[in-house]
Amino acid sequence: MIILGIDPGYAIVGCGVIDYSGNRFSVREYTAVTTPAGTDFSRRLEMVYDGVIALIERHRPQALAIEKLYFNNNITTGIPVAEARGCILLAAQKMGVPIYEYTPQQIKQGVTGYGKAEKKQVIEMTRMLLRLDKAPSPDDVADALAVAICHAHVSGSLLGRLRYQED
Amino acid sequence: MIILGIDPGYAIVGCGVIDYSGNRFSVREYTAVTTPAGTDFSRRLEMVYDGVIALIERHRPQALAIEKLYFNNNITTGIPVAEARGCILLAAQKMGVPIYEYTPQQIKQGVTGYGKAEKKQVIEMTRMLLRLDKAPSPDDVADALAVAICHAHVSGSLLGRLRYQED
Repeated sequence: MIILGIDPGYAIVGCGVIDYSGNRFSVREYTAVTTPAGTDFSRRLEMVYDGVIALIERHRPQALAIEKLYFNNNITTGIPVAEARGCILLAAQKMGVPIYEYTPQQIKQGVTGYGKAEKKQVIEMTRMLLRLDKAPSPDDVADALAVAICHAHVSGSLLGRLRYQED
Repeated sequence: MIILGIDPGYAIVGCGVIDYSGNRFSVREYTAVTTPAGTDFSRRLEMVYDGVIALIERHRPQALAIEKLYFNNNITTGIPVAEARGCILLAAQKMGVPIYEYTPQQIKQGVTGYGKAEKKQVIEMTRMLLRLDKAPSPDDVADALAVAICHAHVSGSLLGRLRYQED
């Protein structure tokens, strides 16, 4: 099962494409779609959209996994992130890729088995599961790979063994 | 000058297309793009995007005018609105239509000449300027026509006379 994980944003979109077969992960590609500061915002949205479309065309994933957004504070920066996230969801919809959304806690649980794991534990487990020499950077890319792993664990053949819990 | 005004949303997108020539307004079309509750959210985003694309193709506006988003409270409902708004901005970008954003206060100022006008005053002035028998409904459509009028007044030939002020 090929899964595209996305960490949404408008300046940096973390993207990770993994293949999960026979309880084993392999990395197909990880990258960041970046948009230059100072560019018209609608053009940045277009770059995000086109970047995700291109990744989907290249890998034909069976699922797009993405973090749910929450804004407890700093809503001002949150609005453009949500606007970019809308364009990412639209790209998946246009390409016929089913979308799966996970809360941060679900991602921690799905990757490490512990819903209150620290960020660096999640990144380290991501690195180990994907057999990478070092943690992917920037963090946005590591986060994208983590949500893809989460989806694999939740939906894949490990489901019965992990006894994934909603919260 | 043909202007497409948009009141963003994911359940109801207010849309108003006006023509502003010789200091006179005429209405070309006003409508609401609506998406049924219970539909997959990404499909709703696609309906919003496709609806705006269709309006642009039909009228070829020189500008898309849209309200800036602010969330002081109820951010939970605000996130999907921002996601839909991102898809609307993307539609304009993809169709090469320049985007102009206005705060609620700028819209009140631009339509009525008074930045603290009440909502019903804005709607009534919108109705009068467009020479409509009654106020367009739902309010989302009236709001869309109002932001289009605001843009006409700000950017059009009345600019010098109205002495539009930023705040």
